[in-house]
Amino acid sequence: MAGDLIPPLRAEALIREHFPAFSSENVDLEEAQGRILREDLHADRELPPYDRAAMDGIAFSSAEVAAGRREFAVVGFQPAGRPASRLPAGEGSCHEIATGAVLPIGADSVAPYERIALRDGRAAFEEGFTPGPWANVHRRGSDAARGARLVSSGMLLTSPEIAVAASIGKARLRVARKPVIGFVSTGDEIVAVEQAPLAHQIRGSNGPALAAALRRFGYSLSKKMHLPDEPEALRRGIGALLQSCEVLILSGAVSAGRTDLVPAALEACGARRVFHGVAQRPGKPFWFGTGPAGRPIFSLPGNPVSVLVCLYRYVLPALENASGLSDLANETAELASDYEVKAKLAFFLPVRIESRAGRLLAHPQPPNGSGDFAGLAGTSGFVELQPGPNRVAAGTAVPLYRW
Amino acid sequence: MAGDLIPPLRAEALIREHFPAFSSENVDLEEAQGRILREDLHADRELPPYDRAAMDGIAFSSAEVAAGRREFAVVGFQPAGRPASRLPAGEGSCHEIATGAVLPIGADSVAPYERIALRDGRAAFEEGFTPGPWANVHRRGSDAARGARLVSSGMLLTSPEIAVAASIGKARLRVARKPVIGFVSTGDEIVAVEQAPLAHQIRGSNGPALAAALRRFGYSLSKKMHLPDEPEALRRGIGALLQSCEVLILSGAVSAGRTDLVPAALEACGARRVFHGVAQRPGKPFWFGTGPAGRPIFSLPGNPVSVLVCLYRYVLPALENASGLSDLANETAELASDYEVKAKLAFFLPVRIESRAGRLLAHPQPPNGSGDFAGLAGTSGFVELQPGPNRVAAGTAVPLYRW
Repeated sequence: MAGDLIPPLRAEALIREHFPAFSSENVDLEEAQGRILREDLHADRELPPYDRAAMDGIAFSSAEVAAGRREFAVVGFQPAGRPASRLPAGEGSCHEIATGAVLPIGADSVAPYERIALRDGRAAFEEGFTPGPWANVHRRGSDAARGARLVSSGMLLTSPEIAVAASIGKARLRVARKPVIGFVSTGDEIVAVEQAPLAHQIRGSNGPALAAALRRFGYSLSKKMHLPDEPEALRRGIGALLQSCEVLILSGAVSAGRTDLVPAALEACGARRVFHGVAQRPGKPFWFGTGPAGRPIFSLPGNPVSVLVCLYRYVLPALENASGLSDLANETAELASDYEVKAKLAFFLPVRIESRAGRLLAHPQPPNGSGDFAGLAGTSGFVELQPGPNRVAAGTAVPLYRW
Repeated sequence: MAGDLIPPLRAEALIREHFPAFSSENVDLEEAQGRILREDLHADRELPPYDRAAMDGIAFSSAEVAAGRREFAVVGFQPAGRPASRLPAGEGSCHEIATGAVLPIGADSVAPYERIALRDGRAAFEEGFTPGPWANVHRRGSDAARGARLVSSGMLLTSPEIAVAASIGKARLRVARKPVIGFVSTGDEIVAVEQAPLAHQIRGSNGPALAAALRRFGYSLSKKMHLPDEPEALRRGIGALLQSCEVLILSGAVSAGRTDLVPAALEACGARRVFHGVAQRPGKPFWFGTGPAGRPIFSLPGNPVSVLVCLYRYVLPALENASGLSDLANETAELASDYEVKAKLAFFLPVRIESRAGRLLAHPQPPNGSGDFAGLAGTSGFVELQPGPNRVAAGTAVPLYRW
């Protein structure tokens, strides 16, 4: 690591500064869930587009009720999906009506079946029931005027926004394009998941964990490569991925040891270091830079806890930001018990989250050192504690990152 | 609706009682993110499987340090991925070592480069640095014994559990099978998204919204059908879907009107009603029952707000429960401002969630009646308020359902 360690907030700011925004693309509505909208959606008609019955019952003129009428002759039925019927000229008539139907011409009010008695072709109002104009009518334009902005660019698309898009006829939506993301793992002790490791070997878990984390946010890992701890092989492999990937993530060989060859290999490929070393535990040797074409490169320490923590703390928020997400999650939780941070490093503490009476309680689940990724199973995520020496008291609000 | 309205909690309990558990299936590790695990995962070896250097530096015998030695001759290098080297017999020698490497035979401690001076093939300890046994060593078996349970059945698989599965060689995992879900929309006023509606028509938004909501939880909508408000067509269409779907969801025609033909059509298909009518707003006419083969059927009111609310309040939790998820989310939020519930019905109030100092604040975003789905765009979800008449005070903790 070169020079001083920088604090996490500074690392985050430098990443944003060097991370170009993704372009956008059009996708089918059914593919749009979880994507980030990159256009404003406007009402193509008034919403609702017509005076719409909000209940099943009868439609009539409220002026007659105001004048004292308590009973109407039922002379027609207005179903949904049919043009508006017309009440007869003169007084005393109503039409039955279905929820969702357009109000008959001449009617301005709906009485639900629950408040009327229907007998021998006549509808009589319940005692004391005196509906005024527009009772149980969802009035034309009352939700939105034609041309009104219904959904803004930058919004994460969930089911309500998809419903709105469908209702205004947007069968395709403009959303942030997903980048091509590449991953390089290093470490000569690593074998594939399917392989039986020798006594001094372990199976590689960073690729699968990274792919899962990306997938949870709707990204996919396009290209994967495992490279040996050997300068020329690293240079060639990294060079190839820098050509084909828009975001490159590496794990391992980024610290100060004899086989920590990744920073040199990156620089040999024309990458430019933005920082190397963050005042945090785990993940201190984190290197970030940009490729020859300005593409972001995250070179993370190889141990699985560091990889996961750096992914959720830096990489995923950077992807969301580059996608144009307007409302980046800044969730906090209350630490459920005191926790002592000893080193002068920000500490990422795994926690189990409990929702209790509107509060998020973060119960510390400290791993057994930064190599203990098994200890992360069943945790909800981690919180970020300020550098030590400091005793963080129970009840302190701390930033929360969820797996 | 037949008989009394039941409260939401009772509806929830009845749904669980009549919703058979899903079977399980094996999937590739890379497909397992977001799935619900249906087997326990055990350590196939000790974790870590060997005494593993946790830092880059030198490996030596701590007994020599305890006896006063401050300097070692560097006589070898132990890289990761190689069988353990052996320190020479006699005193005064060490090997350089890489993070992740197995400890050389004869060594029991690691001093990181930061705490030593390397010069002329000798490593001298920094003043005051006296590492004891197993310093900077991630000891064999210290995270988990061989055979220990690392992840329990019923857990939602996120990146940490995927990392653990990879590390123990599970290239495939047993998870809850996803059911075949079918959807029927009704309403003669509805046209397709791609179509230009006439003055008395609207585009159907329930299908796209439902598909998006299911997708967010990892389910997919396998079969979709729009049926006219006509008894025989409804009976035929529903009958066909009851054959091919394990879970059937319908929207519309479930209330008390002349065109509310769905409950009768369901019963004509051999479905059995469990309840019809829940004391809630929106969504009061909600019908739930089972098909001839005992398969669950959710017949929801047709307005888009009711459909979404019932989905998140009932359908999605029922799917998660039937998948065997052990830790069902029971999130609560604090109501950010007073809200008055007038009707004697549980009220589902759309909210925007703010995370402030470890608390989740739910800001009411009441829609303009239950037909106003455009008002849901940009909300975070909804909270459930107890039936009125009652003024729910700001600060009250209320159940939260997020889109």
